[in-house]
Amino acid sequence: MTHGYTGQILRVDLTSGRMVTEEPPENFYRQYFGGEGFIGYFLLTELPSGVEALDPQNRLIFAAGPLTGVPVGGCGRHSIGGKSPLTGGFGETEAGGYWGAELKQAGFDAIIVEGRAEEPVYLFIQDGQAQLRDARHLWGMKTLECQNAIREELGDHGIKVAQIGPAGENLVRFACVANDLDAFAGRTGMGAVMGSKNLKAVACRGHQRLSLADPPAVAAIARWVRNNTPLANKAMRELGTANVIRGLNRHGGLPTCNFQMGSFDGVDKISGQAMRDTILVRRRSCYACPVQCKREVKVDEPFTVDPRYGGPEYETIAALGSNCGIDDLKVIAKANELTAAYGLDSISCGAAIAFAMECFEHGLLTPRDTGGLDLRFGNGLAMLEMVQRIGLRQGLGTLLAEGVARAARKIGHGAEEFALHIKGQEIPMHEPRWKQGMGIGYAVSPTGADHCHNMHDSAFTHLGPDLEDMKTLGILEPLPANDLSLAKVRLLIYRSLWMHFLNCAVGCYFVMVYGGVGFQRIADLVRSVTGWNTSVFDLMKVGERAANLARVFNLRQGLTPQDDNMPQRFFIPHTSGPIQGVALDYEAFQKAKEIYYDMMGWPSGKPSVGKLGELGIDWAAPLMEA
Amino acid sequence: MTHGYTGQILRVDLTSGRMVTEEPPENFYRQYFGGEGFIGYFLLTELPSGVEALDPQNRLIFAAGPLTGVPVGGCGRHSIGGKSPLTGGFGETEAGGYWGAELKQAGFDAIIVEGRAEEPVYLFIQDGQAQLRDARHLWGMKTLECQNAIREELGDHGIKVAQIGPAGENLVRFACVANDLDAFAGRTGMGAVMGSKNLKAVACRGHQRLSLADPPAVAAIARWVRNNTPLANKAMRELGTANVIRGLNRHGGLPTCNFQMGSFDGVDKISGQAMRDTILVRRRSCYACPVQCKREVKVDEPFTVDPRYGGPEYETIAALGSNCGIDDLKVIAKANELTAAYGLDSISCGAAIAFAMECFEHGLLTPRDTGGLDLRFGNGLAMLEMVQRIGLRQGLGTLLAEGVARAARKIGHGAEEFALHIKGQEIPMHEPRWKQGMGIGYAVSPTGADHCHNMHDSAFTHLGPDLEDMKTLGILEPLPANDLSLAKVRLLIYRSLWMHFLNCAVGCYFVMVYGGVGFQRIADLVRSVTGWNTSVFDLMKVGERAANLARVFNLRQGLTPQDDNMPQRFFIPHTSGPIQGVALDYEAFQKAKEIYYDMMGWPSGKPSVGKLGELGIDWAAPLMEA
Repeated sequence: MTHGYTGQILRVDLTSGRMVTEEPPENFYRQYFGGEGFIGYFLLTELPSGVEALDPQNRLIFAAGPLTGVPVGGCGRHSIGGKSPLTGGFGETEAGGYWGAELKQAGFDAIIVEGRAEEPVYLFIQDGQAQLRDARHLWGMKTLECQNAIREELGDHGIKVAQIGPAGENLVRFACVANDLDAFAGRTGMGAVMGSKNLKAVACRGHQRLSLADPPAVAAIARWVRNNTPLANKAMRELGTANVIRGLNRHGGLPTCNFQMGSFDGVDKISGQAMRDTILVRRRSCYACPVQCKREVKVDEPFTVDPRYGGPEYETIAALGSNCGIDDLKVIAKANELTAAYGLDSISCGAAIAFAMECFEHGLLTPRDTGGLDLRFGNGLAMLEMVQRIGLRQGLGTLLAEGVARAARKIGHGAEEFALHIKGQEIPMHEPRWKQGMGIGYAVSPTGADHCHNMHDSAFTHLGPDLEDMKTLGILEPLPANDLSLAKVRLLIYRSLWMHFLNCAVGCYFVMVYGGVGFQRIADLVRSVTGWNTSVFDLMKVGERAANLARVFNLRQGLTPQDDNMPQRFFIPHTSGPIQGVALDYEAFQKAKEIYYDMMGWPSGKPSVGKLGELGIDWAAPLMEA
Repeated sequence: MTHGYTGQILRVDLTSGRMVTEEPPENFYRQYFGGEGFIGYFLLTELPSGVEALDPQNRLIFAAGPLTGVPVGGCGRHSIGGKSPLTGGFGETEAGGYWGAELKQAGFDAIIVEGRAEEPVYLFIQDGQAQLRDARHLWGMKTLECQNAIREELGDHGIKVAQIGPAGENLVRFACVANDLDAFAGRTGMGAVMGSKNLKAVACRGHQRLSLADPPAVAAIARWVRNNTPLANKAMRELGTANVIRGLNRHGGLPTCNFQMGSFDGVDKISGQAMRDTILVRRRSCYACPVQCKREVKVDEPFTVDPRYGGPEYETIAALGSNCGIDDLKVIAKANELTAAYGLDSISCGAAIAFAMECFEHGLLTPRDTGGLDLRFGNGLAMLEMVQRIGLRQGLGTLLAEGVARAARKIGHGAEEFALHIKGQEIPMHEPRWKQGMGIGYAVSPTGADHCHNMHDSAFTHLGPDLEDMKTLGILEPLPANDLSLAKVRLLIYRSLWMHFLNCAVGCYFVMVYGGVGFQRIADLVRSVTGWNTSVFDLMKVGERAANLARVFNLRQGLTPQDDNMPQRFFIPHTSGPIQGVALDYEAFQKAKEIYYDMMGWPSGKPSVGKLGELGIDWAAPLMEA
């Protein structure tokens, strides 16, 4: 079965305004696939070491994958990457929504942006054509206004817009790239990179049908996904990603008050159930997806929350809710609207505010610093105010817009203790004292603390269908969440490699992993779409290749294995709650990290030439030196 | 899909006569699978270091696999293993025929034999029952007589017999275990181990139907195999494995006169075509196989060759033909009959005679040593005489029965130069100066020089369907045979791991690999048979696990990475013929070996704890010390 799967990549030099189209050979697609794989390849081959993230030389890469836009649930994602202004290393983040599918239907697999426009511009791509357009009138707009304005001036309300809000314009280091108002390439600060290039938006419109190698086979898988994943993801559908809140809280895994606690008194007020019963007005989905885990919420008083921005996900509820000690769902919904409107990563934003709250409670920040705000845990209105100040870089927001690592260094006096980050990126809302495998995953993730390049211990521990599917990889037994055995490190690696693959594909974890689609059916889907003889083995190697490219990029940019670390807080046991007394054991953590390197073929934390050769990327070996 | 695939393993202690049956849990089967995997597991967990191969404590393990006996072409194989009297390390060898399927139908997956019977015995297994029977009257018999005698005395001509001939009784270090008269577990001297235990034969009769998880799916694959593999293997079917002879000769890859040359003047007289046109009377097959690559030949004059012993395969024709400088197909056919009747590995036997011939031509052996035989290359009758003397340990045969490594040490005076072996096992009939990937494979094979734990460069280089299937593993481009790049080492490793898997399954390379069945369909077959959620990834890991167990066993028995070597001859270019001037480059060979270790996760040639942990066998790490 051969098919000749190829496509087009658009290169945009904003400095010169020059745009060219490339058509890489099919084997390039087979090896690097798309998404994270493309990003790793192009960053490594094009970006010299030492270029700053906000330098015009940095690349900003929008990359779909072979699955993006295929009419099957879970195939609505794309990836954005570049050198990260938070970590100084590999930046890569994925988003759902409809934009990625539209990019593909417009005839492109990826866009590589370099340089810096003299004045704000936006890029409009339609059916194989690209043009740069003046965006001076859009600069400063929040995302809703900007999307409306673009659709209006182009006269097409079907246009999909990926864009930065004021936060990206203001180079907030954790600014995101928003699309469709409710989907976010949230992490690693790609919004700031976009802002630094004076690129306000990328608008797409496409009418091309994706070519499929075996349409009936794709249709059969689509049918299977439609019929089965909503059932497997019943709670996800009914309650959104927030369905996990109560369970996490019960296990002590709900980050509370800047990870000082693992359970939250106000949990029932912020749960998925509470949202369903109060402010939810509609479920939303990404492209082609039957699960509909996305929310749409509406609040009328005491303030309004605009339903056009969707509704909060788990990460947002925990980051701007429990982790800030806030139990008011309306306030959290408003914060969600604001992060969407300003274009902020809700995880890092919430983490930065929680950090500031802890500093404030310890007197390291005072009302003088906060402009009079009583920035204690639990103060919802102060939190909302801080979201806006960060987005606009006003007052204390100027400092927090730098991320907690840089802010803590500036505050000094021990503020580092409260700055929970790895490599400069804030910890997402998964408690590494409970999900210890993910803890190791945080430490070694190429993107700094991140839950999208590793795994969720708890899911594997508790979910039956997932356990059965893991046997496809030879993992035969479940493991407790708070375990750091060799077997756990293996589990982490296998799941991480699969996530790296999904980030290349680009596919949705919720549908593809937790929806029970299964490793083999995904390989069948890739084969049916591309015509490639492939296998779970091949796809695991695609993921491993992407992981190694990212690792080499980080080494090239001067990151070292010493940066694969963990905030001290997580080595200190909780003093109360369900995981009272539980912490990461320092020795066990170090040992697990060594074992991780060993299993990855990374002696002393660096990919060996043999490992790179096995992955067909030994060309990258000389690039490892900073 | 779960099924509960389990079975029974029979343990036989010949010293005490005690027999017990074990039923390992399903996860044991999933991890270690069968065949080579079982052998590695049991040898490593049961055999202390330092026990001699011919010591009663050594284990002799007969192991089928999940595929053995399944009514699909290529599923007629079993494996036999123990510590090797040739190498002092991991001994393992597979055979086709019907015996493996019969063992499974008799209710057993494996037999673990230990101890030594006081008097010769044979084991009879029938439908779940096992008994040890007197074999004193069978001792000394050739294989045909012995098989007839057993069938006669048990009154059942459907009984399948695996047995040793006089060579095994006489502890010839390269004695084989023959079954069905024309199938041989040939390599690593398992016949000598069997002889040392006074075990003449294992006779099986079974009427149980194998339980299949998904019979219609198995039937569909069987149909596919029946319809397609004879076409893919057209030359194999028509000409037997000897179909390759002319091509090899053309490329300079036909071992000639103890590998002094790579092409042979008499090639057309010994080719598959010559056999078809002269002495072939019938094609034979293994259990359930539509390819029928096995031969049956008949010669009436100037001597008789008994068709009941089948006919020579490629390895036999090269080893006892071209590599001894012999171009008389009738002589080769007779030699084939004799090795079958005496129970000798035809590869090592031919190699030993070729070694002796080169010694003779250099005056290191004289007519005094040979009992007057003019043991020059090309003397067919002398060769036939030597086969018998080796089998009976008579005259010079006593010396050669020790294998070329030990014989050369005894002869001295530089005879080592002519002793082509690795770790004590003779080189099979694949020229490592041409197939350089297999050359590395020889060096690192756990069994010493062996073509059944690595790969055939040439096949991948030349065969279209195989190339397309390799893409399933992410190998996108063919590579020249005489290449030792990183990409070649990767190819070697991927193919080796798959062969290790097939040795666990136990499946036939010819059908499963060259028959175009393909990686994915084999994974589907395993799933349909066992009910296990499996994948190509999982099966590659099964192979890798087996390879690592074997490696650990070798380290435990005192073998070192220095034993992963290569006879000097192969670093010296041919002086004529198609590959004139071509040799293994010493530096490139060493570098490729280092890269192999690196890619395998074997720093300094030893599996790392992380690698063993990744394979779920970190229990083996402490066993690595001799």
